[in-house]
Amino acid sequence: MPNRALFENVWPIASFALLGTCFNAVAIGFSLIGIAQIMPFSVQFTTIQLFLFSSLISACDPVAVIAFFEEIHVNAFLYVSVMGEALFNDSVVVMLYQMFSKFLAMGEENLLPVHYAQGVLSLLFIACGGALLGAICGFVAAFITKHSHRADTANPTTVFLFAYISFLLAELFGISSIISTTVYGMVTKQYVKENTEWQTSMSISYFVRVVSQASNAVTYLFLGLVLISIPSHYDVWFIIWTLVFCTIFRIIAVIVQCLYFNRFHYPRYTVIDQFILCFGGLRGAIAYGLALDIPDSVEAKPMFATTCLMVIYFTVFIQGVPMPYIVQWLKIKREHHDSNLMAGFHNICNNYTRSAIEAIIGQKCMHSCCQKYERINAKYMRPALIRDKKRQEFDASRIVRNYSKAAVSNAIAEMKFTDLNKTKSDQIELRERHGKEN
Amino acid sequence: MPNRALFENVWPIASFALLGTCFNAVAIGFSLIGIAQIMPFSVQFTTIQLFLFSSLISACDPVAVIAFFEEIHVNAFLYVSVMGEALFNDSVVVMLYQMFSKFLAMGEENLLPVHYAQGVLSLLFIACGGALLGAICGFVAAFITKHSHRADTANPTTVFLFAYISFLLAELFGISSIISTTVYGMVTKQYVKENTEWQTSMSISYFVRVVSQASNAVTYLFLGLVLISIPSHYDVWFIIWTLVFCTIFRIIAVIVQCLYFNRFHYPRYTVIDQFILCFGGLRGAIAYGLALDIPDSVEAKPMFATTCLMVIYFTVFIQGVPMPYIVQWLKIKREHHDSNLMAGFHNICNNYTRSAIEAIIGQKCMHSCCQKYERINAKYMRPALIRDKKRQEFDASRIVRNYSKAAVSNAIAEMKFTDLNKTKSDQIELRERHGKEN
Repeated sequence: MPNRALFENVWPIASFALLGTCFNAVAIGFSLIGIAQIMPFSVQFTTIQLFLFSSLISACDPVAVIAFFEEIHVNAFLYVSVMGEALFNDSVVVMLYQMFSKFLAMGEENLLPVHYAQGVLSLLFIACGGALLGAICGFVAAFITKHSHRADTANPTTVFLFAYISFLLAELFGISSIISTTVYGMVTKQYVKENTEWQTSMSISYFVRVVSQASNAVTYLFLGLVLISIPSHYDVWFIIWTLVFCTIFRIIAVIVQCLYFNRFHYPRYTVIDQFILCFGGLRGAIAYGLALDIPDSVEAKPMFATTCLMVIYFTVFIQGVPMPYIVQWLKIKREHHDSNLMAGFHNICNNYTRSAIEAIIGQKCMHSCCQKYERINAKYMRPALIRDKKRQEFDASRIVRNYSKAAVSNAIAEMKFTDLNKTKSDQIELRERHGKEN
Repeated sequence: MPNRALFENVWPIASFALLGTCFNAVAIGFSLIGIAQIMPFSVQFTTIQLFLFSSLISACDPVAVIAFFEEIHVNAFLYVSVMGEALFNDSVVVMLYQMFSKFLAMGEENLLPVHYAQGVLSLLFIACGGALLGAICGFVAAFITKHSHRADTANPTTVFLFAYISFLLAELFGISSIISTTVYGMVTKQYVKENTEWQTSMSISYFVRVVSQASNAVTYLFLGLVLISIPSHYDVWFIIWTLVFCTIFRIIAVIVQCLYFNRFHYPRYTVIDQFILCFGGLRGAIAYGLALDIPDSVEAKPMFATTCLMVIYFTVFIQGVPMPYIVQWLKIKREHHDSNLMAGFHNICNNYTRSAIEAIIGQKCMHSCCQKYERINAKYMRPALIRDKKRQEFDASRIVRNYSKAAVSNAIAEMKFTDLNKTKSDQIELRERHGKEN
């Protein structure tokens, strides 16, 4: 997850996650109720019960999105848009789901407007609480790794342990565990990488990938197993209408929001970007988990669960599987890591200049916020959480790091491998190694 | 585990593991019976029951040995001697233990000499079966990684999965799971490293260390817990006599065997080496696991289990914990990885020369065996198990690898870091990185 790209596009992502998901949940809910008035489905349900279903079905699943987007390497802007939405709409879905299950327990006739306000307020608690919890766990883990460099092989255990603790605590307090774990990862990444040996941080990030792939496999194994092991109730029309509304309202939400953001946010969402955003709304195991959590007293629960499973299968097989081919066919700009000295150097200079211009014209934009955060980070957090760091006003390490990276790749490029019958590809591989390593 | 050092010292290691352990088991058994005749212990036991105990108490534990020797980095010769004994005496202990438990079930009066012969024969099955199983699993894993390079993040899962399969199958067939897993590691190491990206193999070896450390912690946690959770029977004299005999017979076994091998095996075991070998006989969780497996019909089981636990505590705290300080105090030669071009190059040349001389004088020694194995490996196994390997008579890759390693470190040493205020230590660190990486 590229932290900076995430911060720079925080408004579109927040909008997709918050407004988009709410719109989807409400629109799908009302549409299905409308259809039910015209042609009743095989099982009866109340309005609140249906909203419970519509809120869980409108959640994009980060696991499914990672599974398909991780390997494609689309550009950072598109990646954080799809990925950020999937990660952060978890809080919205949890909020909506908790709100409607509370309404269900209270009974529809006892609902007052104040309850709706309470529900919306709890969103703040669920999202911000998750972020805060993740950040605290991240700082603690970073602080521990700062002082445990003499037992370097214990550091991966610390990192994984606190990730799990942040997940467990979030579940315990009923706040968003996905946001908590995501923020934990974003926080620890910056500090742990500098506190540990390069082998340690590389192994950690590599094993996160291995474990996430393995968990992905287990998740889809589970989704395959439940199809035949759990009592199901197929209502073909309910499935079809749900699929239709999921698709239509996602397209509407994406287009409307992109139109709005394209007016003043840079970079713009092109038509192709919008197409991928529509296509990226993959549903996954979280929705199904919530469907199984619906109280058994709800008569339509088997129908909801089966429909949810069908929507997951549809989005994964019809939308997810062809994704790499579509990305290739549409010639979407891929991410390329540029180890070129000048490009990297000027990119950083450019960012400083932009924030300077923002400061001169007196506008507080994303760039100056990022720069401000980096200053605070360099002055207080990095010295506290990173080994052998002195307090410094201006964190020049990124420029220095960029320079030494280029210098290493230069030195290796100058090596004469020809007398060893080394091919060109070997040299490129070596250069890549050293590029990644620094 | 340095494979080559292990092969070169295979005879002393086999002798320590096989003869040393058998001698210990028999000597401790007879001595305790002798003591029991003079001053009876608090619980009665038969001869066979005591031999069950003496066979499990004479096993060195690889987990305990790794825990203390991993971090010290003694020279490869001493390390493989201690480590090899601990790993391979497992088969002997399993054999003795199974033999005596069968005798116990049959009843002492029904024993015939043929049963002893059967027991000794089963050693072959337990040890060789374990090695064969480990090798087969290793080849399968190597073959899979050869063809799965397009899904590189799946390779660590394959490697760990087959390690576990080799362990489970060994337990299933009643053969030595420790030998099986060890041989698996020795086999896969050669091929998987070349089949995967360097990040993958580095992450695998790093995570093996992390997991082994974590498992170590859990093992000792368990050994601490059982002290207060399982009914125990303290017989102070039995504990003291067991400790005394364990120590005395280990010293005798080590000195006698070293005297014998020093007559024709090179390198010699110095007095300090012998001291460390005596000291390295750490007992661990395996002995205690076997003690818990003693049938409940044996009246003395609680006494045996408690004594076993006390011996483990004694060897770990009195022998294991001071080990690093003793190694430092005795100024034992440490292992140093020499990335010097000339030293590495001549070391390899030296090995080839030695095997040539052995061939000329018509003597089949360890060097020519190793060389022969390497030729077969290069001709048949490596092409079959490594990606993009052509059949070749003479595997020159070690010399080439050595050269390119030195060339990389040269190139980096020539970089001018001075204008970036990089200190000398930074350059050394960079060089080490590149040294390790190749």
